[in-house]
Amino acid sequence: STRLILLEGENNDKFFTHPRNPKALAAYLFAHNHLFYMMELLTGLLLLMLSLCEAPAVPSLRLDVYVHATLELLALVMVAFELCMKLRWLGFHTFIRHKRTMVKTCVLLVQFVEAIVVLIRQTSHMRVTRALRPIFLVDCRYCGAVRRNLRQIFQSLPPFIDILLLLLFFMVIFAILGKSYFNTMENSLVSLFVLLTTANFPDVMMPAYSKNRWSCVFFIVYLSIELYFIMNLLLAVVFDTFNDVEKMKFKSLLLHKRSAIDHAFQLLVSRQRPMGVSLKQFDGLMRFYRPRMSARDRFLTYKALNTSGAPMLSLQDFYKFYEVTGLKWKARRNWLLIPYCGYFPLQFISRLHCVSVLPLSVYGVEVLLKISGLGPVAYFSSGWNLFDFSVTVFAFLGLIALAFDKEPFYFIVILRPLQLLRLFKIKQRYRNVLDTMFELFPRMASLGLTLIIFYYSFAIVGMEFFADVVYPNCCNTSTVADSYRLINNTQGNKTVLEEGYYYLNNFNNILSSFVTLFELTVVNNWYITMEGVTSMTSHWSRLYFMTFYIVTMVVMTIIVAFILDAFVFRMNYSRKNREPLENPEDENGIVFEVEVSRDDVLAALELYKQMCPGSSSLSSLQGVLQTMDKSGHSSLVYLGRRSRTKSDLSMKMYEEEIQEWYAEYSREALPEPDQSLERDPDSPMPDLSPFPEPQLNSQTGPHSIN
Amino acid sequence: STRLILLEGENNDKFFTHPRNPKALAAYLFAHNHLFYMMELLTGLLLLMLSLCEAPAVPSLRLDVYVHATLELLALVMVAFELCMKLRWLGFHTFIRHKRTMVKTCVLLVQFVEAIVVLIRQTSHMRVTRALRPIFLVDCRYCGAVRRNLRQIFQSLPPFIDILLLLLFFMVIFAILGKSYFNTMENSLVSLFVLLTTANFPDVMMPAYSKNRWSCVFFIVYLSIELYFIMNLLLAVVFDTFNDVEKMKFKSLLLHKRSAIDHAFQLLVSRQRPMGVSLKQFDGLMRFYRPRMSARDRFLTYKALNTSGAPMLSLQDFYKFYEVTGLKWKARRNWLLIPYCGYFPLQFISRLHCVSVLPLSVYGVEVLLKISGLGPVAYFSSGWNLFDFSVTVFAFLGLIALAFDKEPFYFIVILRPLQLLRLFKIKQRYRNVLDTMFELFPRMASLGLTLIIFYYSFAIVGMEFFADVVYPNCCNTSTVADSYRLINNTQGNKTVLEEGYYYLNNFNNILSSFVTLFELTVVNNWYITMEGVTSMTSHWSRLYFMTFYIVTMVVMTIIVAFILDAFVFRMNYSRKNREPLENPEDENGIVFEVEVSRDDVLAALELYKQMCPGSSSLSSLQGVLQTMDKSGHSSLVYLGRRSRTKSDLSMKMYEEEIQEWYAEYSREALPEPDQSLERDPDSPMPDLSPFPEPQLNSQTGPHSIN
Repeated sequence: STRLILLEGENNDKFFTHPRNPKALAAYLFAHNHLFYMMELLTGLLLLMLSLCEAPAVPSLRLDVYVHATLELLALVMVAFELCMKLRWLGFHTFIRHKRTMVKTCVLLVQFVEAIVVLIRQTSHMRVTRALRPIFLVDCRYCGAVRRNLRQIFQSLPPFIDILLLLLFFMVIFAILGKSYFNTMENSLVSLFVLLTTANFPDVMMPAYSKNRWSCVFFIVYLSIELYFIMNLLLAVVFDTFNDVEKMKFKSLLLHKRSAIDHAFQLLVSRQRPMGVSLKQFDGLMRFYRPRMSARDRFLTYKALNTSGAPMLSLQDFYKFYEVTGLKWKARRNWLLIPYCGYFPLQFISRLHCVSVLPLSVYGVEVLLKISGLGPVAYFSSGWNLFDFSVTVFAFLGLIALAFDKEPFYFIVILRPLQLLRLFKIKQRYRNVLDTMFELFPRMASLGLTLIIFYYSFAIVGMEFFADVVYPNCCNTSTVADSYRLINNTQGNKTVLEEGYYYLNNFNNILSSFVTLFELTVVNNWYITMEGVTSMTSHWSRLYFMTFYIVTMVVMTIIVAFILDAFVFRMNYSRKNREPLENPEDENGIVFEVEVSRDDVLAALELYKQMCPGSSSLSSLQGVLQTMDKSGHSSLVYLGRRSRTKSDLSMKMYEEEIQEWYAEYSREALPEPDQSLERDPDSPMPDLSPFPEPQLNSQTGPHSIN
Repeated sequence: STRLILLEGENNDKFFTHPRNPKALAAYLFAHNHLFYMMELLTGLLLLMLSLCEAPAVPSLRLDVYVHATLELLALVMVAFELCMKLRWLGFHTFIRHKRTMVKTCVLLVQFVEAIVVLIRQTSHMRVTRALRPIFLVDCRYCGAVRRNLRQIFQSLPPFIDILLLLLFFMVIFAILGKSYFNTMENSLVSLFVLLTTANFPDVMMPAYSKNRWSCVFFIVYLSIELYFIMNLLLAVVFDTFNDVEKMKFKSLLLHKRSAIDHAFQLLVSRQRPMGVSLKQFDGLMRFYRPRMSARDRFLTYKALNTSGAPMLSLQDFYKFYEVTGLKWKARRNWLLIPYCGYFPLQFISRLHCVSVLPLSVYGVEVLLKISGLGPVAYFSSGWNLFDFSVTVFAFLGLIALAFDKEPFYFIVILRPLQLLRLFKIKQRYRNVLDTMFELFPRMASLGLTLIIFYYSFAIVGMEFFADVVYPNCCNTSTVADSYRLINNTQGNKTVLEEGYYYLNNFNNILSSFVTLFELTVVNNWYITMEGVTSMTSHWSRLYFMTFYIVTMVVMTIIVAFILDAFVFRMNYSRKNREPLENPEDENGIVFEVEVSRDDVLAALELYKQMCPGSSSLSSLQGVLQTMDKSGHSSLVYLGRRSRTKSDLSMKMYEEEIQEWYAEYSREALPEPDQSLERDPDSPMPDLSPFPEPQLNSQTGPHSIN
C-alpha cells in the first residue's frame, strides 16, 4: 500500500481511485505496468493508422473493407478489454463518475456499432465519428502530456473567447461599413475574415485602390486594429492565463506528491518503528517500487535521503523521495575531469579550422573519452553531449563521403556546415537558447502531438465531406479558377504546360489532407483552397475552414505562449542564479553526492544477507567493496545524476512561494483528525492507519484528499 | 536654480548640462518653453512634408524647384538657429560631446549644401540623404517618447541579432539542401527568405510536390524550425530584453527625479531656514516652476505634500513632489456621487434595449450630469468617460439620421452598433483590456510614430531608386508578370479589362510609397512587389526589400512585446491589488485628499498678501473662503486628481525593489561629501551649496551625478 501511494503520487492518480479489494488491486497492478501501457498505445495507434487504409485510402495502402473492418473490431475489443480492467480496479461507482473514461466508453460503443455495420454492408458509409478516434490514443498512459496540453488549452479558452468576440465585433462593424464594396454581407464578412489572416492582402484592396487612392485607409485601419492590436491582445491574454495555469499545475502536482509522501511515511512508521524509516524498511519499499534497481543503488538512494546521518529517515528526509529516486549512480573517478579540461581549448581550435581534419579527430577523441568516462547512458542523457556526438558523426560521415566522392552521399556532404553549430556552444545566449530547447523538447513534442491530433480529426471530417471534390480545371465558377487550371498550351511547336497546382491541395486521402491542413495552418493563400472547395460544394464548407483556422490559432498561440514562457522563465532563472548554469559539472543536470565508508557498506551487506540470503542482487554491493579494495581508499564518493526537468527549475524559481504553499497545505490538513498527526513524526502512531491495507479491511470507503 | 533642478528632474536632463552663466541661463530658459518646442516641432514637420512637393511629388501638391528649395533653406535656417541656442546653453565643450546634437549638426550641414545645390541647378538631384530628415523631428522636445522607443529598439538589437544569425544559419543550410530544386544559390536563398515570411507558400512547394509527394517534408521541416520555433524565440528574446530595459529605465528615471529633489531641497533649506521648506518658500518655487498654477492650487499642493501637519516640509514630504504637481484640484461636493449611483442599473437597461430611444436619453442625461459634476476637463481626462461620451454622441447622431432618413448620414447610421461597445464595460476582462488600452494609448501612438519615421526613411530611399520603374504590362521577364498585366480583352462584343493591379504598388510619390510599405509590412504577397521592381532594376534591389522586412520585423516584435508586457503587467497588477481597480472613485486615476480649515486659508491669505500685495492671484484663495461661508462649514475637503500613468503602476509593482534601489542609491551617494548630508535634513547646512547659483559663481565646473 505504501508503494501504491508513492506510485499514485508519481503518476498523479487521485487517492480516491485507490484500489479497495484484492481483485481491484490485482487489476490496478495489471493496468499499471509498461506492457499494459504499450498495449494501450499500440491499440490507439492502430486505430488511427486504419484511416490510411480505409476509403478514401492512400493508393498504395488500400485494404479490402472486410480486412480493415476486422482489424478495427479487433482493436476495439482490445480497448474494451482495457476498459474492463479499469472498471475492475476503480469499481463501478468511481468508474461512471470519471468523465474521460465515460466519454471513451461512449465513443467505443459508437465505433463498435459502426464497425459492425461496415462489416455487414461490406462498404464504408459516411463515418464522421472516426474524428473521435484520437481519444483512444489520448487516454493512454504515455500520452499524459497531451492530456495536460488539452486541459491547458481548454482552460485558456474562456479569456481567449472573450477577446475573440471583441475581434468578431470589430469585424462585423467593418463588414457593415464595407458592405457596399463587397456587395453582400456574407462576402464582406468572409473577405474580412480572410483579410484578418492577411491571406488576400493587398489583392482584396487593389480594385478599390485603383478607383480611389483613399480607400486604402479602410484596409489599413482594419488591419491595424484587428491584426496588430487585438491579435496581440489575444496572445497576451493566452500568455497570461497560460502562466497562471502552469504555476497552479506545478503547485497541485507538488502538493499531491507531498501528500503521497506524508501518507506513505505514516504507513511505514506506524507498522514497526515509530521513530522513522530504517534502511531495511526503505529497501523493502524500493524493491517493490523500483524492481529493477540494484541493491547498491537502493543503498545509495537511502544514503542520499539520509543527509542528517541519523540511523533512520525522518519525514523531512523522506520529503526528497521523488527527487532522488530517478538518479543514476556512478563512482566519482578522478580522470573523469580530463575531457572537461580539454574542452575549452578545443572550442578555439574549432573556430579556426572548422572543416579541417585535425580538430575533427580531436573532437572524435573527446567524444570517445567522454563516453567511456561517463558511460553511454549518462553521456547520451545530456542534450549537449548528444549534440556534440551527432555533429561529430555527421562531420566524419561528410569527410568519408568527400574521400570517396560518391553521389549518394550528397546529403551528408552538405550536412558538414552543421559543424558550425559547435560555435553556438561558445556564446552564453546560444547556450541558453539550446539548453532551453533541450529541456523543453519533450514538452514541445507533446504540443506537436496535440496539434497532430487536431489535424487528424479535421482530416477525417475533411475526407468525409471533401474527398475528390477538387480536380484539375474544376472550380470554373469561382474567383480562384486560375489556381486550379491545367492546360496543355500548344504555341507553335512547343507544348507549354500551364499548371495551377492547387488541385493537389485536396482531401483525397489522409496524407494529402495533412499536407493541405499544414498549408491552411501557414495561412498564406489558404482562401484559394477554401474557395475552390466551396465552389464545388456549398457555402457551409467555409465553416470548416474558418473553424480550423480558429482552432489552429488557439493551439499556435498556446505554442507561442509556451515558448515565450519557457524562455523568459529560463532567462529570469539564469539571471537569478548565475553560477549553476556556468558550472560545467552541473550543466548536465542534477547531481547528488554521497560518500560511503567501508563500514557502511559492510553493515548494509550484512543486513541484505539476513533479509534475502542467496540473492544475486548483492553482487552490486560487493562490487563497491572490491572497488574500495582496488583503489585502497576506505571510502568512495558516488555521484547520482539525472537531467534537470522544468520542475527543478520551478522549484528554484518559486522557492519562497513553495514555502507558503506548504504552510497553507499543512494548515488545511490540520482540521482532519487522521492527518493532524503528520507534523509530528516522532509521536507514537494511532492504531488506525489513514490508508487501510486493501487486503485487510476492504469495507473502508474511499479516502478523498480533496 | 532650485526650479531648474526640478525642471531637469522632470525633463530628465542631465545635471552636467546645467547652465553655468547668465547667458547660458537665458538660452536655457529660451530653449525650454512651449513656444520654442512648438517651433522645433513645426520645423521638423515642415521638412518632412517637403517630400510631398519635391519630385517625385504627389501630383496635386507639386511645387516648383525654387519654391520647395527656398522653403527647405528657410526651415534649415530655423534648425540652425535652434542649434545655436543650444550651443549657447550647453557651452562648446558639452555641445560637441552630446552625440545626438552632433549627428544633427552634421546632417544639417549636408542638407544645407544639398539645398543650395538644388537651388543653383534648379533641378533635384538624387538625394538619398533626405532619408535622414526625420532626425530633426525626432530631436524635438515633444518627440521624447519616440527617442526613447528608438533607444529601446537599439538596446534590444544585440540579442535580436544573435537569434537572427541562428535564423540565417538554418536558412543557409536549407538553401544548400534545396539548391538543386531552386537552380541557383541566390534563387534558393531568396525563395527561402520569402518562404520564411510564408508569402510564397504553398506555391513555391507545388511544382516539387506535384512530382514527388514526399518533397513537402523539406518545406514542412523548414517552416517548423524557422517560422514556428526560431521566430518565436526572436519574440521571446526581444520580450525578455524589453522587460529588463523597461525596468532599468523606470529605475533610472526614478532615481534621477529623487536626486533632483534632493538637490532642490538642499538649496531651499540652506538659504534661509535649516529645518525644512516653508509655505512661503514653496510658493515662491511653484510660482516659477508652474507659472499658470493659481494661488489656491499652490496652497493645496503644499498641503498635499505636508502630510505630517508639521509647520515645514521635511525631505520625506518633499520626495512626493513629482506625484502631486500634476494634480487638478476640486472641492468635493456631495451630489457628485449621483451619477455613480445611477450607473450600474443603466448597464442592465442597456443590455435589454440596446438601440431603443429610452436608454439612449438616459445615457445622455448621465453624460450631462457627469460633465457638470466633474467639469469638462476632469471628465474628458478619463478614458472611460470619453468612451461613454463618444458612444452616446454617435448613437444620437445615428438616431437623428434615422429620423431624417437622409443618404449622407449612411456612415453614422451604421456606427450605431458601436453602442454595443457599452457592453464591454460590464465584463471585468474587457474593462481591463480597455483600461490598459486607454493607459497605453500615448505609448502606442509613439510606437506608431516611430514606425512612421522608419517608413519615411525607407520611402525616400525607395523613391530615389524605384520611382516610375513599374507600370502596367511591365516586368514581362519576371515570374510575376501576370500581376502587372493590364489588357483590354475584346471577346465578341464585350470588352473585359484584365487587371493585375500590382503596378499600383509603386514608389512614384511619398503617399504611394507609404501604402506600398504598409503592404510590405503585412508581408502577404510582398515578393510580387519585390520581384516586379527587381526585374525592372537590378538584383541588388532585393536588399532594400529584405532590409525593410527585417527592420519592420524588429519594430513589430517590439510592438508585440510592448503590448504583451503592458497587458501581462496590468493583469498581474490587478491580481495583486484587486480592490483599487474595482473602486469606481479611484478608477479615473490617482486621487489625493486634502482637508483645509478656515484658519489655514486665512493664514495663507495673509502670507500671500505680504509677499505680493495687490496680486490678482489671490482671488482663487478668497474663492475658497467664500465657498466655506456659503456652505457654512469651517473646513472643506479638496480632491486632487490626475490620470494614472504607467509610472504609478510600476511604483506599486516594484514596491519592494524600489526600497532596495533607494537604499543602494543613498549608499552610493554616501562617499561624495556634498551629498552625505542629505540623509539628515535637520542638521545645519554647510556654506557650500552643491549647485552654485549660475549668476553668482559661473567659474564652478559642471557637476556630474553619474
